[in-house]
Amino acid sequence: MATPDVDLVVVGTIGIDTIITPQARRQEVLGGSASFACATASRFTRTGMVGVVGEDLPRAARARFDDLDIDLAGLQTVPGQTFRWSGEYMTNMDERRTLATELNVLEDFNPDLPATYRRAPFLFLANIGPDLQRRVLDQMTQPRFVAMDTMDLWINIQRDNLEEMIGRVDLLTLNESEARALTGVHGLPVAAERLLAMGPRYVLIKKGEHGSMLFGSDGIVLLPAYPLREVVDPTGAGDAFAGGLMGALAAGGEVTPQRLRQAMLLGTVAASFAVESFSLERLVHLTREALDERAAAYRAMLAGAV
Amino acid sequence: MATPDVDLVVVGTIGIDTIITPQARRQEVLGGSASFACATASRFTRTGMVGVVGEDLPRAARARFDDLDIDLAGLQTVPGQTFRWSGEYMTNMDERRTLATELNVLEDFNPDLPATYRRAPFLFLANIGPDLQRRVLDQMTQPRFVAMDTMDLWINIQRDNLEEMIGRVDLLTLNESEARALTGVHGLPVAAERLLAMGPRYVLIKKGEHGSMLFGSDGIVLLPAYPLREVVDPTGAGDAFAGGLMGALAAGGEVTPQRLRQAMLLGTVAASFAVESFSLERLVHLTREALDERAAAYRAMLAGAV
Repeated sequence: MATPDVDLVVVGTIGIDTIITPQARRQEVLGGSASFACATASRFTRTGMVGVVGEDLPRAARARFDDLDIDLAGLQTVPGQTFRWSGEYMTNMDERRTLATELNVLEDFNPDLPATYRRAPFLFLANIGPDLQRRVLDQMTQPRFVAMDTMDLWINIQRDNLEEMIGRVDLLTLNESEARALTGVHGLPVAAERLLAMGPRYVLIKKGEHGSMLFGSDGIVLLPAYPLREVVDPTGAGDAFAGGLMGALAAGGEVTPQRLRQAMLLGTVAASFAVESFSLERLVHLTREALDERAAAYRAMLAGAV
Repeated sequence: MATPDVDLVVVGTIGIDTIITPQARRQEVLGGSASFACATASRFTRTGMVGVVGEDLPRAARARFDDLDIDLAGLQTVPGQTFRWSGEYMTNMDERRTLATELNVLEDFNPDLPATYRRAPFLFLANIGPDLQRRVLDQMTQPRFVAMDTMDLWINIQRDNLEEMIGRVDLLTLNESEARALTGVHGLPVAAERLLAMGPRYVLIKKGEHGSMLFGSDGIVLLPAYPLREVVDPTGAGDAFAGGLMGALAAGGEVTPQRLRQAMLLGTVAASFAVESFSLERLVHLTREALDERAAAYRAMLAGAV
């Protein structure tokens, strides 16, 4: 049986996380950049996941991906241990420190995309080493729109690879501290200019609970975050945001500035659900109706002053 | 000659500031909550200033208020030294510490409003002791809309007075750390609920470079800050924001949720000019045209996703 086509391919990590927050502690829960990004993207469009897990990945974890309708033709299962990360959030969740990172099966990961993935129109290179991002991009035949995310680790240890990749994508997403680290500039409008000069058409700076800013030749778009009464676990918020954005964009087909702005709004709303629980717990039960309802409430909060 | 009526009365401090930023140091420049609030309010509507200065206030400072078309019938000049404040901004301006505060003539300030002020429809109680805010409010005959601002000092030393005043106003403006200090709640939506329960119809939480959130029975309004390429001195930004908001609101006459939201946007834009220079330097030369032009650009940044 031929695998059906996917609209969006996402490569990133699939991990087993241990998370400590001021209120709670969760051991060995499903996480990783690809997990969160696919979980939100798949609310909008047919999404294929590229990544690697060890044979230790619990059957329940894979069942979650199935529940989310994520296409798993690009997911490799190999002997060994799945990638593991543990982190602790400080008072008020505005700071976190990594307690441990074990690459495990990620160390020898060699992505090999199914034929149906190679012709997908949309590609999201979620946070993973820029060398792996490149190997995935190189296998795509003619992607219409490519986004990539990164993190401070790659800025520190693979800067050349990272900068080369930044020059090859349409949209770079990164958080404010990473934008500053990459450019040496504190002010975000100026940092964004420097990043745009590296080649991408758009730069999207994520500011967590303070929202996001999109910079491109067609201007700046500003979005505050959706105001939540309670944040349970911020892990994966940025991945869920970018995944939701790319899913919404892929669902629309052609990319226009207006569609990109709309996708940014939907990504923001999708991310607000991700942080309401640990792991993918809330996202697994997230319906398109709940998402659209919150998007309407959010639009009302933004529309008044415009 | 009878003093012409004013639409908006502002009470607050008029001070002589010494400011240290990572880039520069300015000694003895005009500052104070009433100065910044009146400077932006007067771009929109006829504004009267209530406050006190010492005989040492340089003639040039008073000339600035005249240049700004601020009505000074409520400004007392008394023997002694003007209120003085000095503060230092740390790296990247995201933190500041107060180096010195001298109340001077503020200690014995007894506001006595001109008759034309007492019948003004709009009142802004900018940051000053809640006892003084009360004495001003008590002299107003029937204000249509009253806003008040405060600061951590009054939360610490005059909490009862402060809470009584909060119960008497239509709009409470305060920054996020103050909202947390007053309620003991970290999350802003829940903190805002607690503050609304104290009596005001609206609570506006200011988040500096991260924008602001307005809470009221007609919903939540979210605004990011206007993105600036360079911030020279953040002093007075919150006062300029609230002053601009109240000026724009007073210019509109009747208060509706929609007009309040529009005023919030204009206050945000007005504040963005305040931080582009030390003291009132940029505001003194701010034309309504420049303000409207930036407001249009800002609306475009917000409108795309809605």
